[in-house]
Amino acid sequence: MRLAYQGEPGAYSEAAARRFAPHAEMLPCKTFDEVFDSVVQKRATHGVLPMENSIGGTIHRNYDLLVDHDVPIVGEVELDVVHCLQALPGTKLADIKTVYSHPQALAQCERFLKGLGVTVEAVYDTAGGAKLVAEERLANAAALASRRAAEVFGLEVIQEAVQDFEFNITRFFVIGEAAPTDANKTTIVFALPSTPGSLYRALSVFALRDINLSKLESRPIRGRPWEYLFYVDIDTRRDEAPCASALAQLGEFATWVRVLGTYRGWERAKPSPS
Amino acid sequence: MRLAYQGEPGAYSEAAARRFAPHAEMLPCKTFDEVFDSVVQKRATHGVLPMENSIGGTIHRNYDLLVDHDVPIVGEVELDVVHCLQALPGTKLADIKTVYSHPQALAQCERFLKGLGVTVEAVYDTAGGAKLVAEERLANAAALASRRAAEVFGLEVIQEAVQDFEFNITRFFVIGEAAPTDANKTTIVFALPSTPGSLYRALSVFALRDINLSKLESRPIRGRPWEYLFYVDIDTRRDEAPCASALAQLGEFATWVRVLGTYRGWERAKPSPS
Repeated sequence: MRLAYQGEPGAYSEAAARRFAPHAEMLPCKTFDEVFDSVVQKRATHGVLPMENSIGGTIHRNYDLLVDHDVPIVGEVELDVVHCLQALPGTKLADIKTVYSHPQALAQCERFLKGLGVTVEAVYDTAGGAKLVAEERLANAAALASRRAAEVFGLEVIQEAVQDFEFNITRFFVIGEAAPTDANKTTIVFALPSTPGSLYRALSVFALRDINLSKLESRPIRGRPWEYLFYVDIDTRRDEAPCASALAQLGEFATWVRVLGTYRGWERAKPSPS
Repeated sequence: MRLAYQGEPGAYSEAAARRFAPHAEMLPCKTFDEVFDSVVQKRATHGVLPMENSIGGTIHRNYDLLVDHDVPIVGEVELDVVHCLQALPGTKLADIKTVYSHPQALAQCERFLKGLGVTVEAVYDTAGGAKLVAEERLANAAALASRRAAEVFGLEVIQEAVQDFEFNITRFFVIGEAAPTDANKTTIVFALPSTPGSLYRALSVFALRDINLSKLESRPIRGRPWEYLFYVDIDTRRDEAPCASALAQLGEFATWVRVLGTYRGWERAKPSPS
């Protein structure tokens, strides 16, 4: 197994890939397009793609790439985004004058950084900030990145989980060729005209068969102002009879339907009673 | 009128604010929280917030802030995101060695930048990159930002619309106190248990009254693994009789309902026949 992901070693996508297959080889890629190309051209067996973040929203670009390629979703991973303040070993919190990270991570740690009274500097990705601090041996500096980035670049975690919002989860899809045998979830996209009741009719095909929806999102279609694309996750495997019937009936209401894959849903840890 | 927005002068949010009220005073803010505070504390009459981008997705953070504050949505603006390569006057395309911008803008112009063979440097926001090039008088450098940023900082646009994807639209909400008299759209949020058919029943309240939905998005609720929040835009004003009845009936199915505002929808230019 070899997993392609976008980013440097130590990126959150790499952490997600390791969650899916801890012992697989890893193939870092510069772009999401390159992740798809790696799988299509068999340089990797799988690709790992961030699809949505609980603060930032759905990454439409990656849905577009799924629609444009013929590589199915075969797995799902959820990852808590835990930003760690990290620096050269021996650095103290009070020594830090500058913090490097991706603007989104800097924004998510804004209150914490304000409290420190440091200067922030943007970098292209979170792991890249850790790499910069490590390779340039920057004293009085720190990066905001994953704990894994600190391991990769030999930095010391000074403070963990410094983000302002506790709930920060990214959901990833794993793409590849081998359809899993224990699938319990299916992701589909379909298009509907923007007329009253069109979505209601489309959803009836699931509701009447007691199929639960775990994601539903509309998106305007480029160049077709009165038509919408919908992303839907349903809690069933594709080849179960009710699912097959539902999809056949959906074809009557939708102008276009595509199954992006069927896979095992990520099992979230139950919240502990507190 | 004074409009608060997040970012530097020349930011895309400022351009959206100018679309809504071309002659209003502008109040740049560091954060989205500050935009809300400015309106609540009457330093601004309105605030302008990006809510979703056609490539990047919905900005959940700003929906959270809308739910947490008692400031209604009173307007909507859509803006084409057109990244312009800009530099000190007289700079030629061939002179440019380094391009500064926000990582998201750099990613959206990746193919173009690869073609130029330049180094890219991340900055905290797009207008901030333009400011940096202008204030430090950086020769052999350029920024990717709005045309407005070039005007604000005295840069010259060398090439317009250099993004790889043609369709790149951001939708903004305008918040404030004065409810518009010509509203034709309403945004609501509601919560449903994650059980088969719950969304179907909820949507029946609109479908049975021929009320069209122009956005629908589910989002898991933090700390409540089996409950979902839904964002819905409906094509009707809040005080029309069918809408009032629909909302009353929705209260029977949903565990929680909140109307975020009623406003005039942004009129998109019709695509020209080509």
